[in-house]
Amino acid sequence: MTETKSLDQTILVQKYGGSSVASVDHIKRVAERVARCHREGHAVAVVVSAMGKTTDELVGLSKQITDLPTPREMDMLLHAGEIISSSLLSMAICELGVPSRSFTGLQAGMRTDDAHTRARIQEVQGGRILKALEAGQVAVIAGFQGVSPALEITTLGRGGSDTSAVALAVGLNADRCEILTDVDGIYTADPRLVSGAKKIEWCSYDEMLEMAVLGARVLHSRSVEIARKYKVPFMVGLSQQETPGTWVCTREFAQKEFGSMEQVVVRGVPHNDKVAKISFDRVPDQPGIAAKLFETIGALGVNIHFIVQAQSHEGTNDITFIISDEDVPRLRTVAEDLIQKVGGQEVVIDTEVATISVVGEGIAREPGVAAQVFKTLAEANINIDLISTSNLMITCVVALAQMEAGLQALHGAFFEEG
Amino acid sequence: MTETKSLDQTILVQKYGGSSVASVDHIKRVAERVARCHREGHAVAVVVSAMGKTTDELVGLSKQITDLPTPREMDMLLHAGEIISSSLLSMAICELGVPSRSFTGLQAGMRTDDAHTRARIQEVQGGRILKALEAGQVAVIAGFQGVSPALEITTLGRGGSDTSAVALAVGLNADRCEILTDVDGIYTADPRLVSGAKKIEWCSYDEMLEMAVLGARVLHSRSVEIARKYKVPFMVGLSQQETPGTWVCTREFAQKEFGSMEQVVVRGVPHNDKVAKISFDRVPDQPGIAAKLFETIGALGVNIHFIVQAQSHEGTNDITFIISDEDVPRLRTVAEDLIQKVGGQEVVIDTEVATISVVGEGIAREPGVAAQVFKTLAEANINIDLISTSNLMITCVVALAQMEAGLQALHGAFFEEG
Repeated sequence: MTETKSLDQTILVQKYGGSSVASVDHIKRVAERVARCHREGHAVAVVVSAMGKTTDELVGLSKQITDLPTPREMDMLLHAGEIISSSLLSMAICELGVPSRSFTGLQAGMRTDDAHTRARIQEVQGGRILKALEAGQVAVIAGFQGVSPALEITTLGRGGSDTSAVALAVGLNADRCEILTDVDGIYTADPRLVSGAKKIEWCSYDEMLEMAVLGARVLHSRSVEIARKYKVPFMVGLSQQETPGTWVCTREFAQKEFGSMEQVVVRGVPHNDKVAKISFDRVPDQPGIAAKLFETIGALGVNIHFIVQAQSHEGTNDITFIISDEDVPRLRTVAEDLIQKVGGQEVVIDTEVATISVVGEGIAREPGVAAQVFKTLAEANINIDLISTSNLMITCVVALAQMEAGLQALHGAFFEEG
Repeated sequence: MTETKSLDQTILVQKYGGSSVASVDHIKRVAERVARCHREGHAVAVVVSAMGKTTDELVGLSKQITDLPTPREMDMLLHAGEIISSSLLSMAICELGVPSRSFTGLQAGMRTDDAHTRARIQEVQGGRILKALEAGQVAVIAGFQGVSPALEITTLGRGGSDTSAVALAVGLNADRCEILTDVDGIYTADPRLVSGAKKIEWCSYDEMLEMAVLGARVLHSRSVEIARKYKVPFMVGLSQQETPGTWVCTREFAQKEFGSMEQVVVRGVPHNDKVAKISFDRVPDQPGIAAKLFETIGALGVNIHFIVQAQSHEGTNDITFIISDEDVPRLRTVAEDLIQKVGGQEVVIDTEVATISVVGEGIAREPGVAAQVFKTLAEANINIDLISTSNLMITCVVALAQMEAGLQALHGAFFEEG
């Protein structure tokens, strides 16, 4: 996946999100920052999302035509948005006296599989971009898009430009990758809900992945997976200001780069209030029942966050799981049919729930963390409905109305009391 | 340039201009027409321009960033417009139950030279489109764009989708090509100025080229050149209605297709009121003076319609030529300097002029046509300022204020009096 680097400059990959290029003025500001990096001596490759609401506008046009566009045509349509923003940004960089060229995903060698609207990058053939960098040009690459083996245009799914950037950093063997956006980093908790929330200096790939899955919607998960696989350190930070953001990297990189010696137990307290709890009650305690259930639900494209099955009683089980609330209508279409098929009693769908989680590599090391979580929530008089744990996280399902209090209590316990 | 055809259906190439796909409703109407052609048993390849004002909007964005975008980045920016319209049209066709796929210029094999913003098609590698047609799909191709040997995105210049369509018809060895737009054909004169103007049933490639150059702005000239080279007959007509338009074809095709036996002398009376007359007065009658003049003017990118140099008097010449009025500001930047360099007396720039022309293959055959033109204008009391002629046309420069009267007189003489 990597090209041999023949440049004697450091290669910097920067990604700017849609809100950072929302208008011509925004684009000009981004161009200034890019030009500065170029003048400081970096070879700069910029990955850019579509301007502000462009993608939504294109989706809106398609909806006036059909409710069910083919994924192939959706990709064709949407990939135009990043072509527009990348060529405009390239013009703005040129206007500042810095040579620049824009590239489509195809031209930049972003090879993907053929899964339209959610393609996965398989290889970045970085030769053409490296050539531009060697010629002293800033390369501006249309994010979010790639090309399949059959030369079909593909897109990587919403937020996919993060993944374009990390994959490009791998493909160019870049020294540094920056995901620049409208938030200044990853926080210990959502600062809109928890006033004491602090910016995290760095976290591991695994911690970031857990936090992303559990509600910290800053990054496209696939970008973190690729970064982890190829050990690419990257920074998430503000596009408008050059303040340090949050690094997602290995412990070794953090130690070397900014001398971090801390042994953090808990990295953050993410939450998710866009979930629903589904309970298939009193289904027979027989082999194959869960398989039948989740095969049907999986085929609907419903993404299951986690499953909890408590001990059986009187030959029956309650099978409970958490899904995104946007998937509830789809689930409803099969729920009643399904409970009858498996011989259960009833399906309960509860959207008045939320998850609050504690994430950190210390959870594997320190057995006291779980006890601390439960004790903290109990002291705050918050009832825990379900619990799910792994080496990296403890997640509690609570009533939606108690989520904020629970979040504050947990954040207080792990981050504010020494 | 052609592929061997293995389809047993007739291949029909249709081009829809920007005004025909200006809105979602327009796109749906076009889709209905295309679907009908498909159901009638044709294999249909559709070339489409950008929606209505999209190109102007994109140019507007670029102008907010720079006055001098590189041609390469302009091409990158503008080619997004046709990607949007082609994918939307493809969705609309699918919505009517007809399988369809859209293709970028690159995917459709539109290979061009590397002259950004005014590239010329060198070859159409129609294999991928033929494959789609063989699979029973309507292929929708983003017009106006191609790809250079170095895989750079190129565009063909304003109106270039006409050329995309004709070149594709050649590349697919199509049976028929239709350029569908908001005018129902080519007229003997501009019907807004001449009430007796009639739709022309057919004209030759050469006649069409002359008329296009002389003011009948219906088609991209390059499209006619390609059609002439490969003898592709094509029809210009209304997109909203299936009435017969004007065929541009050989005499043989016209005879065979609709039994035309007429020996037309004059095909049409085009005019152009967007011109300026430039006169370099009393320049020395020495070899090399004209060369120096037009070398400098050509380097500005000013397109010269025609040049008239009258007989020299007293060792000096007046060199007069006609340019588009939009090129006048550019010409002004060098005019004074130039007249001094060549030792002439003065430069006169007159924008209050127009050209009226008579075009037809009969002009070569019938020596009386020129006399008829001059006599007609004289009888209408219209003073002829300059005259330029060829085998196919007689062009007179007249005062702008007299253009309309001249046009009506000429049209009356050649088309309305028997």
